[in-house]
Amino acid sequence: MIRPGCTIGILGGGQLGRMMAMAAAQLGLKVHVYAPDENSPAFDVAAEVTIAPYEDEAALVRFARAVDVVTYEFENVPSETASILSAHTLLAPNAQALAVSQDRFLEKTFIAGLGIPVAPFAAFSDEAELAEAVGRLERPAVLKTRRFGYDGKGQVMIRPETDLAAAWAEVGHASSIVEGFVPFEREVSVVAARTAAGAFAAYDLCANEHRHHILDTTRVPAGVSEATEAEAIRIARTIADALDYVGVLAVELFLVTESGQERLVVNEIAPRVHNSGHWTLGGAVTSQFEQHVRAVCGWPLGAASRLGRVEMRNLIGHDADEWERILAEPGAHLHLYGKAEARAGRKMGHVTKVFPEKG
Amino acid sequence: MIRPGCTIGILGGGQLGRMMAMAAAQLGLKVHVYAPDENSPAFDVAAEVTIAPYEDEAALVRFARAVDVVTYEFENVPSETASILSAHTLLAPNAQALAVSQDRFLEKTFIAGLGIPVAPFAAFSDEAELAEAVGRLERPAVLKTRRFGYDGKGQVMIRPETDLAAAWAEVGHASSIVEGFVPFEREVSVVAARTAAGAFAAYDLCANEHRHHILDTTRVPAGVSEATEAEAIRIARTIADALDYVGVLAVELFLVTESGQERLVVNEIAPRVHNSGHWTLGGAVTSQFEQHVRAVCGWPLGAASRLGRVEMRNLIGHDADEWERILAEPGAHLHLYGKAEARAGRKMGHVTKVFPEKG
Repeated sequence: MIRPGCTIGILGGGQLGRMMAMAAAQLGLKVHVYAPDENSPAFDVAAEVTIAPYEDEAALVRFARAVDVVTYEFENVPSETASILSAHTLLAPNAQALAVSQDRFLEKTFIAGLGIPVAPFAAFSDEAELAEAVGRLERPAVLKTRRFGYDGKGQVMIRPETDLAAAWAEVGHASSIVEGFVPFEREVSVVAARTAAGAFAAYDLCANEHRHHILDTTRVPAGVSEATEAEAIRIARTIADALDYVGVLAVELFLVTESGQERLVVNEIAPRVHNSGHWTLGGAVTSQFEQHVRAVCGWPLGAASRLGRVEMRNLIGHDADEWERILAEPGAHLHLYGKAEARAGRKMGHVTKVFPEKG
Repeated sequence: MIRPGCTIGILGGGQLGRMMAMAAAQLGLKVHVYAPDENSPAFDVAAEVTIAPYEDEAALVRFARAVDVVTYEFENVPSETASILSAHTLLAPNAQALAVSQDRFLEKTFIAGLGIPVAPFAAFSDEAELAEAVGRLERPAVLKTRRFGYDGKGQVMIRPETDLAAAWAEVGHASSIVEGFVPFEREVSVVAARTAAGAFAAYDLCANEHRHHILDTTRVPAGVSEATEAEAIRIARTIADALDYVGVLAVELFLVTESGQERLVVNEIAPRVHNSGHWTLGGAVTSQFEQHVRAVCGWPLGAASRLGRVEMRNLIGHDADEWERILAEPGAHLHLYGKAEARAGRKMGHVTKVFPEKG
């Protein structure tokens, strides 16, 4: 049994690991962060750090033996890394969650297999199959690499005039799928937690706006119908149960409105705390980071209720230069990730505002 | 100017330093904790640590040069330490705040000099002066060491039957004062912040209950009259202004009710974040830890407004063994300080509950 004083290992040293580490420390856990980059933001709030590549078997074994449980902040943990860790300690979420979420083809196949709507999709292995698939799905469609896509990377829009060979070349002929384009009205997400014992708690549905393919703003409540919100949460629970999932997961969905009817299509899942859940830090009774730690440790989940209407805005690149103005804004909660260099597109921090709601 | 990415030095490695360090990290600051004990709870969440005695001049100079500002989590910082640090970096709160709060005689003289009510008190240097003072103040009275008293340590009650020589011997004939006993109904405290520019923000008055001389429970609102609350906050501001104070300070007061009239008597001040302000972490828009960091860095203060009716209970010694029950309680916020050994009287953590208030 994991108790306060035990050590939680976190694979990955970015802002998600950093906020997770602070949540763990608040609950009296020691934190050991494993990341390859010596300038990892999470190192600044960790009791122990390991600086080593994710492929360093000896370092992974030492890490696994030094901790009581391992979790991670990113889904692209190599499967070999997950195997090594699992052989020596508890890994949560499990390797299946990683495998499914790392590969768009497996992910969509898995979700569709649960009877949950996804965009129509097809894998292809050469240009002829690509042409056949696009013909079947109709244009516009989206070519997406099976692996390592995030923030719009590894995606090419296939418009009526797009040359298919060029589109595939644009992603370096990586193993990819094509998806039918979903004419969505908005993007929403469910952030929820599940424990090994099957306890489940979802936060209210989040409405997400992107800029240049990067999350810009999350608003909660999402402003959808009660039925849609309940359906989104049912979908998240179905996926979590099917994966025997332990920890916080996020399910990104498209909201499609047709003839006044709302309908949900799953875009992708993230087996980790999620940017669209940052509003819970200060905006919900229990933050997603604390909730994840509770789940991973086998502890009771906390209340997921909101403290008001909440708006979270990412500070991307030089947005973070606004820090002083944000600090002066009453009720704005500023979070900065301690990254030295404000590169374009880099997530430097976020700001959350909580507005009282009429009871 | 101090900006995110700069380093804040914290003298002291206990739970106050730990919570302060996490607040600083949240705002994108690097944290360097200086403490003599290698098992300091604050080390677990600090980017840099120095393990050295507070009297180690070379280590202090290195520390001061490595940071952009130094603050502290305890008032018994030796004055020589404060001088060394002040010579090489910014120290906040300033050395005067330390000097005044370290010595009960100076403290009471200073506060009384501002026209603020304190218990009648007298210094003494031998048994004859002690007898004379007790005769004048009347029994019951309280003998208190001038320095290093906390949680009831260094205090002896002088009852009608108490032998004065024995009472003084009980504190090792330390330099002491006697105070007239204040027949207080309750103990309350103001936790407030002031910036170098004179900005001031007070949290709502806290009502504090002690057990075995250690803070047990803080409740906010304190349930006093509006006039009393305003007076308490005016007192705190007067003290802060007079000290040209920078950071969070706490003013502990006795609430005396006579013929239905409330009256306040200052007990002591603490030039730091304070246990009776722990409720602000989760219970106020800005926690006292973040507020302290903002003030010390010269940044705008955050909103000090409450999120509801709040109750904070300390987990002392084996109280912390209840952690799992507390985690299962909806809406209870558990904070554990990562201390290995649950000794009797040791502050191991606290739990905060926030109850919605009718608007």
